[in-house]
Amino acid sequence: MPKPETAPPAAPDVNFGAFLSGCAREVNAFLDRALPPAAGPAATLASAMRYAVLGGGKRIRPALAMASAVAVGGEPRDALPAAAALEMIHTYSLIHDDLPCMDDDNLRRGQPTVHVRYGEAVAVLAGDALHTLAFETIAGSEAPAEVRLGCVERLAAAAGPAGMVGGQVLDMEAETRTPDARGLEAIHRGKTGALIAASAALGALSGGGGVRQADALAAFGRELGLLFQIVDDLLDEEQTSARLGKSAGKDRAAGKATYPAIHGTRGARAEASRRAARARELLAAVGKEPGPPVNSAGMGLLDALTGRILHRSS
Amino acid sequence: MPKPETAPPAAPDVNFGAFLSGCAREVNAFLDRALPPAAGPAATLASAMRYAVLGGGKRIRPALAMASAVAVGGEPRDALPAAAALEMIHTYSLIHDDLPCMDDDNLRRGQPTVHVRYGEAVAVLAGDALHTLAFETIAGSEAPAEVRLGCVERLAAAAGPAGMVGGQVLDMEAETRTPDARGLEAIHRGKTGALIAASAALGALSGGGGVRQADALAAFGRELGLLFQIVDDLLDEEQTSARLGKSAGKDRAAGKATYPAIHGTRGARAEASRRAARARELLAAVGKEPGPPVNSAGMGLLDALTGRILHRSS
Repeated sequence: MPKPETAPPAAPDVNFGAFLSGCAREVNAFLDRALPPAAGPAATLASAMRYAVLGGGKRIRPALAMASAVAVGGEPRDALPAAAALEMIHTYSLIHDDLPCMDDDNLRRGQPTVHVRYGEAVAVLAGDALHTLAFETIAGSEAPAEVRLGCVERLAAAAGPAGMVGGQVLDMEAETRTPDARGLEAIHRGKTGALIAASAALGALSGGGGVRQADALAAFGRELGLLFQIVDDLLDEEQTSARLGKSAGKDRAAGKATYPAIHGTRGARAEASRRAARARELLAAVGKEPGPPVNSAGMGLLDALTGRILHRSS
Repeated sequence: MPKPETAPPAAPDVNFGAFLSGCAREVNAFLDRALPPAAGPAATLASAMRYAVLGGGKRIRPALAMASAVAVGGEPRDALPAAAALEMIHTYSLIHDDLPCMDDDNLRRGQPTVHVRYGEAVAVLAGDALHTLAFETIAGSEAPAEVRLGCVERLAAAAGPAGMVGGQVLDMEAETRTPDARGLEAIHRGKTGALIAASAALGALSGGGGVRQADALAAFGRELGLLFQIVDDLLDEEQTSARLGKSAGKDRAAGKATYPAIHGTRGARAEASRRAARARELLAAVGKEPGPPVNSAGMGLLDALTGRILHRSS
């Protein structure tokens, strides 16, 4: 008799903390090699790029990409070029987002933002350079041609006007026209969700997964992205800047719509739990798609990551 | 008896003006379809992107790409996705370059710059969105996988820290530390030359040319890029803003090194002639590289383009 469809439980021996720190170490080493050396002409640019990329960050996107590669039967390091590219795109968006004409933020990952340290012009250009380097990194990797092309296409779609940048514009417009719950979700599906979804998809493609497995992991990633953002909003209200490594309480102070502002703190917590449950359902569905057999250790890592994001405190 | 190596003369019946306006028409139509519609959510972003891309421009890079496709035996429209992507990258760099924290320019292509019209935040994001869309356009084209990958790789290398963005940083640093003739050349090899060289190479790959033919056309394009910049500097001194469609005389007023400032007007004119002659030598060498036979009409177009850039008056 078939058992009812349930989300896969985390394998009891999944040590997600060790996996995450291993991913961070590997992607940091890869990034260090991929970034231009802070010497020679345009050393200032390279120095600003390295400062922004190597100065911290939880490496959630790389870990998601690497765990997704494992989930479809690949090795974590198959996803390293994609993981590095995702982190470059993420970092470029933070640099531009922090600019005085945007969110005007002085603190990021516990350090002065790039424009505070290097000036606005260098910050604009360092963001631009990381943006380009992300695509160069994927296109120049050793993966099969169709994997590299699929990754470029999905990364571009996620980062562009229909994804991350589109979400940032909606977010900006929301400062003058407060969105409702649906509008807020649209902002975050673009601003945060698209790149997190792409992390799962790029990881799956890099690990040798099928196109529909990558699509299914992207759907899981979209929920994970919303979950991430809801928790981000809650932390922004509850935590101090020192703990977050970025300016806390700013969103509400700026009158921005946030999940707690729209749903209340308890409502936002409940919404986070619902999103985590939905993410786990979508994760369980990956195994039904055509492609190589899914790997239970990889699925366990993705399940553990979902729990980690739901319960994170910084 | 072998004749001495000389640059190919322009075919007497090359109507370069008609070719250029045909390219502009086709690439404008392609761009119009590739850009997001100025409606729906994030309509402001799409509107700013369309304003910047479709609001003018000589379409030199698209014409160079399309003529290069013809030169290796392809059709002009083989190079359309690459041509559109090149124009998107070029336009994004202009938007960011014009920002108050960069060159602080109010006029571009005869119109108010994007940040004057839409505000700084939208200008940053519209540039970012065009940057991403360039890679999406190439990756999603119908060209063979190895052509698309080659184009992504070369476009990224040309636009990134070792190319265009690197040149912009050198240019910025030159405001406080005046470069010599060699330093000025390094600025322009990056800032203008890399993308013009990539235009020739991407066109060649798109038209079915060999990798070494693309390399040889890139070498031709690098000289063409320097030629373009020397003439730009001369026009900036000699012409009015109305004729140029951008602020004239600004470079010298800002104390920036320019070719006329370093070499004198006559010296800069002589340098332009030398660069044009060198470009034609390199063009003649393309036919020696492995690949499909070169097409004399295409070579004539590239020769005519060289003459057009040398003698342009706006």
